[in-house]
Amino acid sequence: MTNQSPCESLPAGNEDAIDSLNQQILSAKEASLSMSLLSEADKNLALELMERELRESINQIVEANLKDLNCPDNADLSPALKDRLMLDSERIMGMAAGIRQILNIEDPIGTVLEGWVHPNGMRITKLRVPLGVIGIIYEARPNVTTDAIALAIKSGNAVVLRGSRQAWNTNLAIMAIVTRALKQTKVNIEGIQYLRDKSREACKVLLRAQGLIDLVIPRGGETLNKFVTDNALIPVLGAGGGVCHTYLDQFADPQKAISIAVNAKASRPSVCNSCETILVHSSFADSFLQDLVDELVENKVRVHGDQVVKAKCPFVELATDEDWAKEYLDLEVAIKVVEDIAEAIEHINFYSTGHSEAIVTEDIDTADIFKRMVNSACVYVNASTRFTDGEVFGFGAEMGISTQKMHARGPIGAKELCTYKYIIEGNGQIR
Amino acid sequence: MTNQSPCESLPAGNEDAIDSLNQQILSAKEASLSMSLLSEADKNLALELMERELRESINQIVEANLKDLNCPDNADLSPALKDRLMLDSERIMGMAAGIRQILNIEDPIGTVLEGWVHPNGMRITKLRVPLGVIGIIYEARPNVTTDAIALAIKSGNAVVLRGSRQAWNTNLAIMAIVTRALKQTKVNIEGIQYLRDKSREACKVLLRAQGLIDLVIPRGGETLNKFVTDNALIPVLGAGGGVCHTYLDQFADPQKAISIAVNAKASRPSVCNSCETILVHSSFADSFLQDLVDELVENKVRVHGDQVVKAKCPFVELATDEDWAKEYLDLEVAIKVVEDIAEAIEHINFYSTGHSEAIVTEDIDTADIFKRMVNSACVYVNASTRFTDGEVFGFGAEMGISTQKMHARGPIGAKELCTYKYIIEGNGQIR
Repeated sequence: MTNQSPCESLPAGNEDAIDSLNQQILSAKEASLSMSLLSEADKNLALELMERELRESINQIVEANLKDLNCPDNADLSPALKDRLMLDSERIMGMAAGIRQILNIEDPIGTVLEGWVHPNGMRITKLRVPLGVIGIIYEARPNVTTDAIALAIKSGNAVVLRGSRQAWNTNLAIMAIVTRALKQTKVNIEGIQYLRDKSREACKVLLRAQGLIDLVIPRGGETLNKFVTDNALIPVLGAGGGVCHTYLDQFADPQKAISIAVNAKASRPSVCNSCETILVHSSFADSFLQDLVDELVENKVRVHGDQVVKAKCPFVELATDEDWAKEYLDLEVAIKVVEDIAEAIEHINFYSTGHSEAIVTEDIDTADIFKRMVNSACVYVNASTRFTDGEVFGFGAEMGISTQKMHARGPIGAKELCTYKYIIEGNGQIR
Repeated sequence: MTNQSPCESLPAGNEDAIDSLNQQILSAKEASLSMSLLSEADKNLALELMERELRESINQIVEANLKDLNCPDNADLSPALKDRLMLDSERIMGMAAGIRQILNIEDPIGTVLEGWVHPNGMRITKLRVPLGVIGIIYEARPNVTTDAIALAIKSGNAVVLRGSRQAWNTNLAIMAIVTRALKQTKVNIEGIQYLRDKSREACKVLLRAQGLIDLVIPRGGETLNKFVTDNALIPVLGAGGGVCHTYLDQFADPQKAISIAVNAKASRPSVCNSCETILVHSSFADSFLQDLVDELVENKVRVHGDQVVKAKCPFVELATDEDWAKEYLDLEVAIKVVEDIAEAIEHINFYSTGHSEAIVTEDIDTADIFKRMVNSACVYVNASTRFTDGEVFGFGAEMGISTQKMHARGPIGAKELCTYKYIIEGNGQIR
C-alpha cells in the first residue's frame, strides 16, 4: 500500500473491475458458512489479535491518514469533514478499545430464543444464527472499518466493506493491519472483503448482489442513504434520519425539562439522536418557555418557534411547516406550544422519523400514555434522546440506528445482524 | 351484498376508484393506533364474537359461495381450484375453530423481550409492539379472510385485505359477518379494511402504500408472489416457495428413512413444506434405494433420478439440472445419490429456497453437522418436513411461511406480525 501514489485505486467502471468486485462478493458468500461456525473462543481470539495489531500499528495508520489528509482531492474538505477523517494516536487507541468492547459482549450466536416440545414428541428449538453476509457502505470516520469487522466476526457474519474515497489510504492501511492479525486466527480472511474501487459503480455492484449479500447498511449522511435506498436490490437497514422530539409536559419539573431539552439539542447536534423539535405544554407559555429559549440561545442554538413562541420571544424565527419535518443536524431547533399531550403525540407520530422521542413529566399517567402511544424505536421518560446509541445500550458498538419497523429497530448491534432458525428433532414423526 | 349480481364489484381503474382505495388504506392507518391499544380481554372478546357470528351464519356464507361457484367467470376453474373455493358447513366450522385457536394463543403484545438498567440508573425495556398495518393479498381459500383478521386483532395490527376475484361474494359475505360481530366490540372497525375492487390496479395501490402499510403478505401461488415482489414499494414477507430436501444418511434407519421421505413428498404434495428432492447416501444405492423408489411409485409419485438412480431403476426419468431447483408442488420428486453428508449439505445450501430440510440418521455427530451447516428456516432430524406449519408450531394459525432471513423466518404467526420498541425511563439523565 505504501508504494501506491496517494488516492490510487483500481481502475473503475470497466467490466474487468466489475468482475473482480463480484468475485470478492462471491468469496465473502463462500466464506460465510465457515464464519458462522467459529466458536466464541476463536472469535474472541481474533478480536484480541486485531486489537493488539491495531495498537502496535499506530504509526502506519497515521502515515496513511496523512496521505489522505494531504491528498489534492481532499483539499476542499470542510474543517468538520477533515476532522472526521483525521486519525491520531488517541483516536486509534479508541478504535482498539472499541474492538475490546465488542470482544466483551456476549456471543449472540446459538442462543436459544425459545424452545418447546410438540405433543407428538418433536423438540422444536428456535436458535439465533448469523444473517450471512453483511454489506457496509460508509463515508463516516475510518473507525467504521474496525467496528464493522469486529461486529461481523462476533456475529458470525461475512462482511463486504466499501469505504469513502476521502479515507481511501487510511482504510486500506487498516485493512492491511486487520488482515495481518486475522491471518493468525481461525477466521477465514475471505470472509472480510474490502472493495478496492472508488467508483459509484462499485457501490452499485454491492447493492445489487442479490442472493449473495443478505443486508446492506449505509453509514453516512442523507445523500448516501438516498443513494443506497434508490439503488439497492437487497434489504437495507438503518438508512433513516432522526427527527427526534422532546415534549415538556404540564407536569414537568422545569429544571429537568430545560436540562433535558438543552442537552438533547446542544450536546452534539450533528448526530441523529439529537432533538430537532421541542414541544412545550401551553401552561408554560407564560413561565419557563422564556427561560428555555434563553438557555438554548446561550448554547448558541438558533430557535424557530410557532406563533406563540414568537409572541413571547420576538427575536426567534417563525417556524414554517417545513421546520417540523426538518432534521437540522445543527445548532438549530424548532419549538411548538401544544395544548395537551394528545396534540403532542399527534404531532410526534405525524412528523417523527420513528427514531427517539422524550417526555419530561412527573405524572405517572401522562408518562404511561406517552410510552404507549408514541410509536418510535426509543421512547424516553425524563431522559435525553441523546442516549439512543449502541454503546450506551450495552451493545458494544453499533452499525447505526434503524428507524424502520422490520427486522431491527433502534441501535444495530451484533444481535441485530442475526436471524434465527428452527431445529426440529424427532424420532420418526410423520404427518 | 345479496342484492348484488354475481361477481359485481366497484368500477375499477379510474381515479375515483383509486382515491377510494387510498382512503380505505388511510382509514386503516388512522385506526392502527387504537388497534395497538386494545387489551387482551377486548381482543379475545372480539374473536369470540367473530367465532360465534360465523357459526351462526353458515347459510349466508354457503349462499354467497354458491354464487361464486356458479359465476360464469369461474366456469373454467379446474376441479382443484373449485374445491379450494368451495365452502360447506364443515369448512366454515373449521374457520370458526381457527379463530378459537388464535383466541387461545398468548397475547404477543407488551411482552418484555429484554430489560436492563444502565449504569446511570435509566431502566431500558425492550417491548414487543404491533407492526402497524398489515396488507394481505390472497387467492387462497376464503378462510384466509378470517385467519388474517383474527391474527391482526390478536397482534394489535390494522389490516387491509384484498381477496381473489374467484371468491368475491364469499369474501364479502364473510366480511359482512365479521363486521357485524366486531361492531359489538371495542375493535375500531376502520382498522379492518377489505378492498372492494377486483382490478390488478387495486393490488398495486396496496403495494405502493408507503408510509401507510408496514408489511404486505401474499398468499397464493408463484404468479401472485412474483406480481407482489415486482410491484411492492413496501416490505414483503413470505413470498418464497419451498424447494425442500430430505437427506437419507448412511446411518439412517431404513424404515424411518422411507417413511419420512414418502410422507414428506406424498402426504400433501401441493403445499410448500412438501419435499421436492430426496438425497440418498451412496451406501444405500444397492439396497433400499430400490425400496424407496417402489414405495414412491406405489404412492403415485413420478420419480426423476440422477444417473445412479436411473441405472438402478431404469423406469425413472433422468433428472436434469432444472429438476434440482424445481418446486413440483405435485406427486413428483427428484432423487440424487450423494457420496457423503458434505455433498448433501452443499447441494441443499445451493438449491434450497431456505424453507425446510430434513436428515434421517441415527448418528449424533452427523445430525449435529446437518443442524449447524444447513441454512434454512426449519432443519429437521428424523421427522418429516411437512411439520413446518404455524398451527403445528403452536402459533394458532399462520399467514404463510417466510423463507427470507430478515425480520421473520419460518411460519408467520401473531408474534411475527410484531416489532419492538425500547422504553427508557430516567429521572433527569442527560449525556
